[in-house]
Amino acid sequence: MQFTSHTSIGDGVAERAFILGEIPGVLWLPESTSAPVPLILLGHPGGLGRMRARLVERAKRSVREGYAAATLELPGSGDRPRSAHVEQARADLRHALAAGEGVTEDLVNRLVLPLVDAAVPEWRALLDALLSLPEIRGPVGYAGGIIAIGTRLALVEPRLAAAVLFAGSYVPQATFEEARQVNIPLLVLLQWDDDGNDRQMALTLFDAFGSQNKTLHANMGGHTGVPHFEGEAGQHFFDRHLR
Amino acid sequence: MQFTSHTSIGDGVAERAFILGEIPGVLWLPESTSAPVPLILLGHPGGLGRMRARLVERAKRSVREGYAAATLELPGSGDRPRSAHVEQARADLRHALAAGEGVTEDLVNRLVLPLVDAAVPEWRALLDALLSLPEIRGPVGYAGGIIAIGTRLALVEPRLAAAVLFAGSYVPQATFEEARQVNIPLLVLLQWDDDGNDRQMALTLFDAFGSQNKTLHANMGGHTGVPHFEGEAGQHFFDRHLR
Repeated sequence: MQFTSHTSIGDGVAERAFILGEIPGVLWLPESTSAPVPLILLGHPGGLGRMRARLVERAKRSVREGYAAATLELPGSGDRPRSAHVEQARADLRHALAAGEGVTEDLVNRLVLPLVDAAVPEWRALLDALLSLPEIRGPVGYAGGIIAIGTRLALVEPRLAAAVLFAGSYVPQATFEEARQVNIPLLVLLQWDDDGNDRQMALTLFDAFGSQNKTLHANMGGHTGVPHFEGEAGQHFFDRHLR
Repeated sequence: MQFTSHTSIGDGVAERAFILGEIPGVLWLPESTSAPVPLILLGHPGGLGRMRARLVERAKRSVREGYAAATLELPGSGDRPRSAHVEQARADLRHALAAGEGVTEDLVNRLVLPLVDAAVPEWRALLDALLSLPEIRGPVGYAGGIIAIGTRLALVEPRLAAAVLFAGSYVPQATFEEARQVNIPLLVLLQWDDDGNDRQMALTLFDAFGSQNKTLHANMGGHTGVPHFEGEAGQHFFDRHLR
């Protein structure tokens, strides 16, 4: 992990851009801390540049409450090389949606599973790097989309102690099977009137998670309209499980 | 409204028992306040004696945050006279459950609607009495069950500004129709694995509410296992809408 910049972005928050191997990412930390802080990984749908304003808002909230926050570009997004297979699946998805056709299970698999398979080892490598910094300690939380990535990470990464998962993306059948084996505390966010999302599928996925301690928060406001107060609710959730 | 006792129950909370007409109730207030405080009505399934410990816990949390809290015995519960028709419906319910039979719409109507019709005017009279006290001001919140009572109150009582509704009871068809006309901010609590409750009916009722600002919180833990942190979440919800 190589840090490429170090800037103050106000409100007592330091932002450090980095490259992990060839993957760009960002770490946010309190400008002054006396002891190592717990870490929240910020999931997103891909495209750090496009997502920057929302990620900074989320990171600032966590850093204000005494956490570090970090994120990593997803495979095939931003400046990272595209995969021909995933690009084909994305083209097929656009075609299916434009034609008003249903999105088949095969298409969801081609779209999401290669991304999960590629991204999860990268986020685990990010954890290796971040937890070796003197400023950061475990346990670790994960917050955000893509829910298939968060589910896989919750299943395979023992350093992950709790997760806030955004149920707003296509869910491969394999993710339901993995969800049954997940047992860390979960807060699942659902946008109730998200036209592009299958509400019943999200409820079924929430039901499938094996965790004894799981909570669903459903709100109005469409796919990108998650209310601001859910940021606070997520922070209270992490306070209960990472402190 | 006649106050019958006035005691300190610790943590800076004063408890005043009262009789409204012939209906017993309890008011909780901060022991020292400089200005009138907003009010939260505490709903419950009936039986103030039986529910006392949980009601006191909920009241203390609200009073600590600078609210008054109040509750009223339900018609036909505690020491209040029974209605022959509702008692017959309760007997029919016990019989149906013991026999493993379904609970018919007719039975739900006979069980719940007379209670709603009788209770809602009483809670409105309670509001008249409480809002005339110098210690209390509007707006007012309602928190708890029975969801058919909370829904009717949200529809007909303009002083009610926000409600936390517990979706854990039988819902008459009329309540779905009333829910469509409700437009105040709502937080609906659902116990996901409540064997005695119809989860799909609760989700359908949440969907039916006309409020633009509505949130569903679903948790594990059975009918009586609402997690302690939902008390805090409810308080944050009221802070957003009653302050």
